[in-house]
Amino acid sequence: MPEYKAPIRDTKFVMQELLNCEDHYQRLGYEDASIEMVDAIINEAAKLNEQIIAPINQVGDQQGCTFDNGKVTTPDGFKEAYQHYVEGGWPTLSQSLEFGGQGLPHSLSTAIGEYTSAANHSFAMYPGLSHGCMATLEAHGTEQLKQMFLPKLVEGTWTGTMCLTEAHCGTDLGMLRTKAELNADGTYRLTGSKIFISAGEHDLSDNIIHVVIARIPGSPEGTRGISLFIVPKFNVNADGTVSDQNGVTCGSIEHKMGINGSATCVINFDNATGHLIGDVNRGLNCMFTFMNAARLGVANEGVAHADAAFQGSLAYAKDRLQMRSMSGPKNPDGPADPIIVHPDVRRMLLTQKSISEGGRALIGYLAQLVDVVHASKDEAEVAKAEANLALLTPIGKAFLTELGLECAGHGVQIFGGHGYVKEWGMEQLMRDAKISCLYEGTTGIQALDLLGRKILGSKGELLKGFATEIGTFCHMNGQNPELTSYCITLGKYSEELAKHTQQLGAKAMQNPDEIGAASVDYLMYAGYVTLAYFWAKMAKTAAETLAKGTAEEDFYQAKIKTAKFYFERILPRAEGHAACMINGADSMMALDSEDFIF
Amino acid sequence: MPEYKAPIRDTKFVMQELLNCEDHYQRLGYEDASIEMVDAIINEAAKLNEQIIAPINQVGDQQGCTFDNGKVTTPDGFKEAYQHYVEGGWPTLSQSLEFGGQGLPHSLSTAIGEYTSAANHSFAMYPGLSHGCMATLEAHGTEQLKQMFLPKLVEGTWTGTMCLTEAHCGTDLGMLRTKAELNADGTYRLTGSKIFISAGEHDLSDNIIHVVIARIPGSPEGTRGISLFIVPKFNVNADGTVSDQNGVTCGSIEHKMGINGSATCVINFDNATGHLIGDVNRGLNCMFTFMNAARLGVANEGVAHADAAFQGSLAYAKDRLQMRSMSGPKNPDGPADPIIVHPDVRRMLLTQKSISEGGRALIGYLAQLVDVVHASKDEAEVAKAEANLALLTPIGKAFLTELGLECAGHGVQIFGGHGYVKEWGMEQLMRDAKISCLYEGTTGIQALDLLGRKILGSKGELLKGFATEIGTFCHMNGQNPELTSYCITLGKYSEELAKHTQQLGAKAMQNPDEIGAASVDYLMYAGYVTLAYFWAKMAKTAAETLAKGTAEEDFYQAKIKTAKFYFERILPRAEGHAACMINGADSMMALDSEDFIF
Repeated sequence: MPEYKAPIRDTKFVMQELLNCEDHYQRLGYEDASIEMVDAIINEAAKLNEQIIAPINQVGDQQGCTFDNGKVTTPDGFKEAYQHYVEGGWPTLSQSLEFGGQGLPHSLSTAIGEYTSAANHSFAMYPGLSHGCMATLEAHGTEQLKQMFLPKLVEGTWTGTMCLTEAHCGTDLGMLRTKAELNADGTYRLTGSKIFISAGEHDLSDNIIHVVIARIPGSPEGTRGISLFIVPKFNVNADGTVSDQNGVTCGSIEHKMGINGSATCVINFDNATGHLIGDVNRGLNCMFTFMNAARLGVANEGVAHADAAFQGSLAYAKDRLQMRSMSGPKNPDGPADPIIVHPDVRRMLLTQKSISEGGRALIGYLAQLVDVVHASKDEAEVAKAEANLALLTPIGKAFLTELGLECAGHGVQIFGGHGYVKEWGMEQLMRDAKISCLYEGTTGIQALDLLGRKILGSKGELLKGFATEIGTFCHMNGQNPELTSYCITLGKYSEELAKHTQQLGAKAMQNPDEIGAASVDYLMYAGYVTLAYFWAKMAKTAAETLAKGTAEEDFYQAKIKTAKFYFERILPRAEGHAACMINGADSMMALDSEDFIF
Repeated sequence: MPEYKAPIRDTKFVMQELLNCEDHYQRLGYEDASIEMVDAIINEAAKLNEQIIAPINQVGDQQGCTFDNGKVTTPDGFKEAYQHYVEGGWPTLSQSLEFGGQGLPHSLSTAIGEYTSAANHSFAMYPGLSHGCMATLEAHGTEQLKQMFLPKLVEGTWTGTMCLTEAHCGTDLGMLRTKAELNADGTYRLTGSKIFISAGEHDLSDNIIHVVIARIPGSPEGTRGISLFIVPKFNVNADGTVSDQNGVTCGSIEHKMGINGSATCVINFDNATGHLIGDVNRGLNCMFTFMNAARLGVANEGVAHADAAFQGSLAYAKDRLQMRSMSGPKNPDGPADPIIVHPDVRRMLLTQKSISEGGRALIGYLAQLVDVVHASKDEAEVAKAEANLALLTPIGKAFLTELGLECAGHGVQIFGGHGYVKEWGMEQLMRDAKISCLYEGTTGIQALDLLGRKILGSKGELLKGFATEIGTFCHMNGQNPELTSYCITLGKYSEELAKHTQQLGAKAMQNPDEIGAASVDYLMYAGYVTLAYFWAKMAKTAAETLAKGTAEEDFYQAKIKTAKFYFERILPRAEGHAACMINGADSMMALDSEDFIF
């Protein structure tokens, strides 16, 4: 199992140098978030994740969670690590001061969230789901409900879940059957069964607060008849103390490909007492608030998987001696050269490196937009941030998780046969990484959201905003000899993207299936272009620092060299996606569903 | 767990209609291999794999093999199924009459091999490894050794292995340490430890015959000092009866990502008696005979994974109701449409379909070349077959296994969250499929073999031969209106491949690292073009049959529609690979190995 080292230096490069978080935080009124404070928190988070959370990653996979008569036991060490996590105040980091939080920016907890996902994806699920529950409750709950539930959730002594999926509906939540009937006291009684509930039942916290979507009898069919409820495992008194067990039980846990330390539960509600949050029948709209944040969190997992695979692969590639370099021995005194000398091994390592570092920059940028949405008083700025978030969240979610999985796969390949054996940790990364392409909306669903709802739905306006940002960057930096070629290339791809978008829009008017036929290729194309923009920006920052003079010349040169690799060896993949996408829907829709197999 | 149905109709299309196996077999003297016999054997093999071997696939994954004090126990049902397999005479199918085989063509056992790998990859490993052992023994063993070992191996009551890898050397076999010292009686005593030995120890057979590479003291260093030995678990008398236990023990088994029913063993040789086969120090050359066959077998696994994933996904996609078609409801009386109406689901299904059927055609073609090498008396024909096999084996091995893994991944995506849960079988396919990208030479090693050794090593001659075959096809069929567009496209890609090859050859003269820098993109490009050739050929066969009139119009129309999908939505991916590859090695080699992480 490779040792995890939090990429502190790179996090600081992204937050402080690329995205100037100091100004950003001060401007938004996050006065406590000084550079010194950010540094101190990141350093402490690194220690926590390296020393406490990473060491239980492998045992978590091996043991998994166990289910016995409604109770779920997490793997050895999870309970102690979670206690440590709570005692360190980590759940409170970016929560509101009003409910006991530290009121620090979301972008800071996002940076740390990457470390936890990389150190131990399964462990990260527990605080991650709480985060979703808290965000939903804070945005839509009544003051009374917030006072009842939030302090303990913020503290971390209670955890939360999001209960959406039922056996017959995942993507298509309009079909849900769980019903919520009004009680005389204004509460509701919920009955139904939810599946795939992460952290639905476990032994880490004193209470579990479920956010549940359900249908109030008599509501409209489909998505316009869904309401949102808070349903605690143990009922809670008005003063926030725990009372009796609610009608909530765990029916079983799933046996999965990966994230075995994360309990994936069937949760049964049997006349369970629930509290409405948000307006009746507006539950799905309330959920959308949460979904963007959750999708950004999953996008961050893609970065985490790429980085964890990169770290393991790099250590192995420097250590493992096998064959000689084709351009002459590089380790003439040894029996063979370390495999990092071989170009194809470097191709895989640099793919991992350019995706994890490029993805970290994209996530950092998106997390700052989340800060803006939360804290800015400038309506125009908030609207622009929301527009970019709407556009880039599905790209980040699907593109970074698909690439995260690819990078984990490269990790297995770099280790060769050893990568397939459990003890080295690479295959676990690959198994864990696959879930990120599925939950919170599969890659296909993200792609439909991007192309159908966001891009064509806005008549191209959302894309135009971001394309303008890229265009401005290219215009401003095109004369800088360090950046000229990147600006030309990036400008060309960005214009191609606009052209493809127009063509797709026109085709979709004739045949709406053209959207779904193009969507995943379109999203991947957009993803490669988006990351190219961030690599160009990073190259600019690095070149400026080098020009000013720095003691860390190698670090900044590596950034510039990695940007070059990304532009030359990763970005051109987009051409394959474009070439497939322009051929349209016809060949995909021609076959009758009965004629797929004979 | 999806039910496995052997794709009999498609196998017959490939063998009989596309590749005219009747003429092929008669011409090579396989007189028993009439169409009736081939049909009967395929139908029986389908039953065996559907009814006996597929049903123990999931339990095999769940239980895995167990190791206790040197003994390995296979999962429940494996022993009985293997006994059934032996009693049915399946191991004997394509083995020599001389040693008790049926003398049927290799291409017939290859077709059946796909079924077994699809039904149960782990189970298929046991006869698969025996096959490699027998092929090596028959090609290089003395008459006495053949008589001692082959009859029982052919019968299947003994099984075989290939013992190559050691802990410190996998790809780089020149570093191996296992030593073989000459005994007075002409046998050798072997001492050393081998890892990753599939079927190295198990409870299915009465004896296990290891083919082992080792170094005779005083031999040259590196690959020119490797010799090949037969080392049985139990020593064998000259009359073929079993005598005492040899110095061969199983030290442990690996815990792996997948193929859990296949025992992956550490095998320790402690003064074990071995019999030299082939010439002293020529062991690696002897192994190459076997390696092409083994790689073709692994390529076939790629087809098997794609097909198994396709079958499971298709059944689910027709059954699972979720959302409405964007072009209007297709199941208006139901609560939602089956997900097969959605273009992106079709994209994944058709990818699986076009890869499994296209791959089946490629494998069928290669297997016929193997028949030619084995049975043709025409030296020129053999030389041409060997040339095409040398070229297309690494393409088949790496391209089809990478695509097989991709298709298994699509299976998980089509099932959504359910795909990640063990009970549905999709995630097992993905875990099993990954090994095929690793063993018998990773994708990277295949790519180096293709571009470095085969293509540039032959100064382009090997490619020229196959390109001429494609060119002839395009020339002959370009005027056929059903095929014109395919011939134009295929011709264009084939010419591009030749152009890229020339450019790479020139660059590699300046810098040998250009080979490794381009190799995987080059192989993938070549793979997409190769499969396009087989899709064009299949479209031709289907169009001709339709023109003649047939009762199976839907089957042949589906072929033509799938060819169109492949050409429009899969082949253009090659453009992304080309765009990456032409940018060369510079950006991959620029970074010092100490500067990858700071």
